[in-house]
Amino acid sequence: MAQLFYLADLFGVAVFAITGALMAGRKSMDLFGVLVIAIITALGGGTLRDVILGNHPVSWIRDDTYILVASLAAVGTVLWVRLTRPINETGLLVADAFGLAVFTVYGTEVALQHQVPFSTAIIMGVITGVAGGVMRDVICNEIPLIFQKEIYAIACVAGSLVFIGMLHLGLPRWLDTGVAMLVVLGTRLAAIRWGLSLPRFHLLDRD
Amino acid sequence: MAQLFYLADLFGVAVFAITGALMAGRKSMDLFGVLVIAIITALGGGTLRDVILGNHPVSWIRDDTYILVASLAAVGTVLWVRLTRPINETGLLVADAFGLAVFTVYGTEVALQHQVPFSTAIIMGVITGVAGGVMRDVICNEIPLIFQKEIYAIACVAGSLVFIGMLHLGLPRWLDTGVAMLVVLGTRLAAIRWGLSLPRFHLLDRD
Amino acid sequence: MAQLFYLADLFGVAVFAITGALMAGRKSMDLFGVLVIAIITALGGGTLRDVILGNHPVSWIRDDTYILVASLAAVGTVLWVRLTRPINETGLLVADAFGLAVFTVYGTEVALQHQVPFSTAIIMGVITGVAGGVMRDVICNEIPLIFQKEIYAIACVAGSLVFIGMLHLGLPRWLDTGVAMLVVLGTRLAAIRWGLSLPRFHLLDRD
Repeated sequence: MAQLFYLADLFGVAVFAITGALMAGRKSMDLFGVLVIAIITALGGGTLRDVILGNHPVSWIRDDTYILVASLAAVGTVLWVRLTRPINETGLLVADAFGLAVFTVYGTEVALQHQVPFSTAIIMGVITGVAGGVMRDVICNEIPLIFQKEIYAIACVAGSLVFIGMLHLGLPRWLDTGVAMLVVLGTRLAAIRWGLSLPRFHLLDRD
Repeated sequence: MAQLFYLADLFGVAVFAITGALMAGRKSMDLFGVLVIAIITALGGGTLRDVILGNHPVSWIRDDTYILVASLAAVGTVLWVRLTRPINETGLLVADAFGLAVFTVYGTEVALQHQVPFSTAIIMGVITGVAGGVMRDVICNEIPLIFQKEIYAIACVAGSLVFIGMLHLGLPRWLDTGVAMLVVLGTRLAAIRWGLSLPRFHLLDRD
Repeated sequence: MAQLFYLADLFGVAVFAITGALMAGRKSMDLFGVLVIAIITALGGGTLRDVILGNHPVSWIRDDTYILVASLAAVGTVLWVRLTRPINETGLLVADAFGLAVFTVYGTEVALQHQVPFSTAIIMGVITGVAGGVMRDVICNEIPLIFQKEIYAIACVAGSLVFIGMLHLGLPRWLDTGVAMLVVLGTRLAAIRWGLSLPRFHLLDRD
């Protein structure tokens, strides 16, 4: 079970790294920049969570599989786009939703191990899921997408809430994890499919 | 006394959250983005201070009142602007100066408890006061206002210096705290009232 | 020897602070902004490394020489440019390469003291060398130069690799340090001299 979750985690790392590499490509960065943005996108959220929680050592510090997977995903993306041109946008969005689900539940769980209030655990789930993408966008000089497009972080909040709620039911842990991940995945896929988005808050410049 | 300071701290959190929500509104973010920017603006400075100092657990990690207050302030701002349009800019600036005063003195005090040199304590006071606003501006793709407009961070430096100086006089702590806060507040209000600003350093692009 | 390295470290801090002050000048920041950007550029990389490693206290927290040197370098830059106009760009680039060499080797060494895998130590060397400059560019609303211009971070990777490799040869530590620094310096100077750069990864906006 733990093995399975570890593999899912690495899959999330790979997917997030790909989105980072693609953004770096849109900014015409050099190959090293592509690598760095990919790694930051993939590991930035978990790192920020661990640093705020004081949860040392940060996961990828001791286990270099994470960096390796993110790097391979970045290099693979460059080769793929060079050799075969179009990347399957829909496939990437679905994979990204899966990575988001894994990261969110994992982040919530790590936070709960530190005996924090539920609201903090939810925030840590969200940070784990979305902060890497926010760093990617900020470094690439874009206003973070997740604050402007379809429902994204709300999917994390929902999954995190469901996870915490189910923990109190005394069910086997894999069931809590699975259902919470499905909630994130389902919310996100529904948002993509029907273009769901939160209302925006418009304010003119000198309001 | 500690109770009073705690309330003042929460007031600062609320005010900073409002400035975050307004900036997010200027960028037409969705409601979740408004919430996130508000929370980052309100708690980012203290979090950065604690992470650099290694001061775990970070304040809002254990006490969810902080997140709650920041969230309510953000939601309140959206409702207020939707329902009644114009926000009182001057009132907000004065409230912001008050929040800045509380955060600065509190940040300096936390740093001193870690037996750091005075220069570090001053920097921690400044970080606590201004880093949240800098994060807000960077994420929203703006060059941080505090480096370009009227005197702002210098008010923190002044308050922090006065606080450290007064500690050596053996006066009651509430007096040190109060006077230092007044220094921040006074400097900032004077800067707003008379448009005081530091000289700028201009450099052409290929100088 | 340790004394010499400490001096070299401070030299690196000063040089990085100068590049920060110049960037702030290009953005017409006020004097406080110049100071802040200079300090962040000079100390941001080492701070991020220590925070991720959980290496407390962060170096400049206890020894205020670092902040002092960075501040003096920033003020000196403003005065220099005001009084004598043109700054020697080539001299600055060479000095920057030297600072990069010191920071990279130092960062790698600190990481190794935490018993991390080699890949992590290399990443920590790179972070120490380049993260301050990335923060400078992000706060100043620029896409980080190091991801777009001549070879820069690769020089850190090379130096870090050589340092780790030489540690296994049982040579005196000053030799490991010296050779690794020369590798960074040499790579960087060659890149500047002949305009070497990595291939870029171009991707159109809707690819």
